[in-house]
Amino acid sequence: MPNPVERLQTLLDAMPPVLAQGVRVLHLDAQVLRLGAPLALNVNDKACAFGGSLASLLTLAAWGALESALHARGIQADVYIADSELRYLAPLYGDLVAEAPVPDAEAIEALIGKLAERGRGGIVMEASARNAEGQLVTSLRGRYAAVAKR
Amino acid sequence: MPNPVERLQTLLDAMPPVLAQGVRVLHLDAQVLRLGAPLALNVNDKACAFGGSLASLLTLAAWGALESALHARGIQADVYIADSELRYLAPLYGDLVAEAPVPDAEAIEALIGKLAERGRGGIVMEASARNAEGQLVTSLRGRYAAVAKR
Repeated sequence: MPNPVERLQTLLDAMPPVLAQGVRVLHLDAQVLRLGAPLALNVNDKACAFGGSLASLLTLAAWGALESALHARGIQADVYIADSELRYLAPLYGDLVAEAPVPDAEAIEALIGKLAERGRGGIVMEASARNAEGQLVTSLRGRYAAVAKR
Repeated sequence: MPNPVERLQTLLDAMPPVLAQGVRVLHLDAQVLRLGAPLALNVNDKACAFGGSLASLLTLAAWGALESALHARGIQADVYIADSELRYLAPLYGDLVAEAPVPDAEAIEALIGKLAERGRGGIVMEASARNAEGQLVTSLRGRYAAVAKR
């Protein structure tokens, strides 16, 4: 039985575009998921982090935080992004690090209730990327849908 | 002097994460830019297009439509995404195709005026992805900033 970090890393590595971005699970506990990716694999024409790579990493961080929280409770569900708002606040000239809070017990229990009742449910997630100095460079707020596996 | 399609393809290929996604310029004229990317390089854990890859392709399509329109008018500017809203309406089980309207002459002239006056300017852009049947699967609406090169 892999630990939660190894399990999530295996899920990420199985997606070719995520593998190409060099995404690593830096930290996962009951409060937060942190993902990293090297700038060299995610750089744009202006020598800073490509907006699409930041969008991808933040989308994944929130996805992973939710997927892992459901899995930890023994729930078999596919998690999809439904919509998102991204804000790019400053260029990032270093490696990418994205953090997403794991939903609290109340939010997860509410989602699991919807899954049990209707086979699907939605939840709002957030994620953010900061530079090495701790300055917020990109934020995501998105709705995710969980769909029970048959 | 490369033609506009070759020039944009060269810009895209110079970005490692975009090269890894296999992004191709399918069409570019004064009205629209169309980009494509194979599903195999952009697939997720659910055998459909990864949301992060769609976010990336739509972000690039709107960026490329704007960057190309400025270049066609001889304007030297860096184009950055400032914020975006993405809607994922349906899973996509085929190759990715994203389309972005090129800003019309009035919008581009207004942006060029701001660049001349203040060295930078903003513009709202849109992009969308449809499946092979023409159904809208993902849409983006985003603000982009153009910054005059020194």
